[in-house]
Amino acid sequence: LAAGVVGPDGTVHSFAVVPTRRRRPVEEILADLWDLGHRALAEADATAAEMFAVGIGSGGPLDARRGVLTAPAHLPGWRDVPIVRLAAQHYGLAARVENDATAVAGAEYRWGEGRGLDNIVYLTVSTGLGGGAVLGGQLFLGAAGNGGELGHVTIDWHGRRCPTCGRRGCLEAYASGTAIAERAREQMEPGSVLAERAGELTAADVWAAAQAGDDLAGRIWAETVAALACGVVSIVNLFEPDLVVLGGGVTRSGAALLEPLQRAVADQAMGPAAAAVRVTLSSFGERAGVLGAAAVGYLAG
Amino acid sequence: LAAGVVGPDGTVHSFAVVPTRRRRPVEEILADLWDLGHRALAEADATAAEMFAVGIGSGGPLDARRGVLTAPAHLPGWRDVPIVRLAAQHYGLAARVENDATAVAGAEYRWGEGRGLDNIVYLTVSTGLGGGAVLGGQLFLGAAGNGGELGHVTIDWHGRRCPTCGRRGCLEAYASGTAIAERAREQMEPGSVLAERAGELTAADVWAAAQAGDDLAGRIWAETVAALACGVVSIVNLFEPDLVVLGGGVTRSGAALLEPLQRAVADQAMGPAAAAVRVTLSSFGERAGVLGAAAVGYLAG
Repeated sequence: LAAGVVGPDGTVHSFAVVPTRRRRPVEEILADLWDLGHRALAEADATAAEMFAVGIGSGGPLDARRGVLTAPAHLPGWRDVPIVRLAAQHYGLAARVENDATAVAGAEYRWGEGRGLDNIVYLTVSTGLGGGAVLGGQLFLGAAGNGGELGHVTIDWHGRRCPTCGRRGCLEAYASGTAIAERAREQMEPGSVLAERAGELTAADVWAAAQAGDDLAGRIWAETVAALACGVVSIVNLFEPDLVVLGGGVTRSGAALLEPLQRAVADQAMGPAAAAVRVTLSSFGERAGVLGAAAVGYLAG
Repeated sequence: LAAGVVGPDGTVHSFAVVPTRRRRPVEEILADLWDLGHRALAEADATAAEMFAVGIGSGGPLDARRGVLTAPAHLPGWRDVPIVRLAAQHYGLAARVENDATAVAGAEYRWGEGRGLDNIVYLTVSTGLGGGAVLGGQLFLGAAGNGGELGHVTIDWHGRRCPTCGRRGCLEAYASGTAIAERAREQMEPGSVLAERAGELTAADVWAAAQAGDDLAGRIWAETVAALACGVVSIVNLFEPDLVVLGGGVTRSGAALLEPLQRAVADQAMGPAAAAVRVTLSSFGERAGVLGAAAVGYLAG
């Protein structure tokens, strides 16, 4: 859980984080969340009454119009929690919720790489792989209010089973942090430095070993980049955006990830789409979630 | 080339078609187009002065904002033709151009299956495979004005080379009419009734032979439906639309195409996206192009 006080110019005046106690009852996690909000207010030397609104970004599925977390995948046991009403009551402010990646797309549009652009796509390559968009200068919410599910564009129709949605060959099944580690475990070789990590293996280990010249890690990393390039080219062709901005832990690999993606888009996307788009990394870092929530808050009330 | 007079309620008062003389100079094809417009006016017993505007739908790439056909793939030799200025001058009316599939999406939104819905995707499965969208109640134009290039979403990252864009495994490389016929020719077997058609083979032949129980045609058809299902599920996940409506010659196969697509979306798309979307066939038939152009015309001026 993260909370912060964010000014209308995108300045983060405070930033507080606590682990989510997933196995605890809903009420206790909500209490943690409200406390975190008060800590963020105190750290910014501010009161709730001085705030414009409460913005919330959450993993889906959620029903943004009704302000309800219907069945958030990352919070087992949560069903139809009316988070907007509860937050509004607790703080005495207007409140709004959106899908977390849609929220960050809104923050990139308002304060980040997407300033002045009409059509931007944000991709987060993290434990999972998701995304959101601003299209025609508006947060893109879609018919069910979750915006686009950008991790679930196909790479390979006969490929790996996607652990999230069950169909074959989704981008997420190749390029999420979870999928990177899983692919390395599946292809493990005795000579690889990754063998020492065994069950603890993470995407960061794969990236570190690839940089250090490990063969297996190098192959896994190259396939990851190729999968992500394929997905990003499809996304560029379908949305014809001005900007694709990538965030999330896996993008800490920096230019080693970004440059091949930029080359793939330039070489493989449809001509006008390739000419119109810029592909870059987010500069938000760990504050992405709070900036996203704030961008949603400024649309509330 | 097709032209028609279309009322504000979507009534097609006249409808005229002539073959495009692709190999003739630009000026002669434009003269054919203007003549066709006058024929449509005469058949509707109307004059240009009574019209609201001239709407134009064209294959891309085009620059809709400047009103210029930059390099339309279906018209070899056309470069930077200012079609909007020329049409406005010729008829003395406001004019506007959009990508033809985007235009039909606008017509489905205004007069077709998409009435009353905010987010609709139109897919045309014809010689090529393209599409357009209305998102948030607005024609979706994208950063370069071509809207989405929906035929260029990947099915198989190591798959067939796409004849249009050159990368591997695009939906268009499997499910367009051209690709259906090509895949049948590649896999030809002596016992198949398709062998008699040889170089003349079309997607309609494959469909007819599949219905008649031909093994090869049945396999090609099943693969076509599976490819289209994969692409449509990706599109539903990415756009989370209220409606996907399909048109174009290949959809004349009707329920044999539609029902497997509906099942695939229900079973494989992300839950909220699957629950929110309806998948159906267009009822516009051969008038799709003229209705699309008219929908663009009503946005002109």
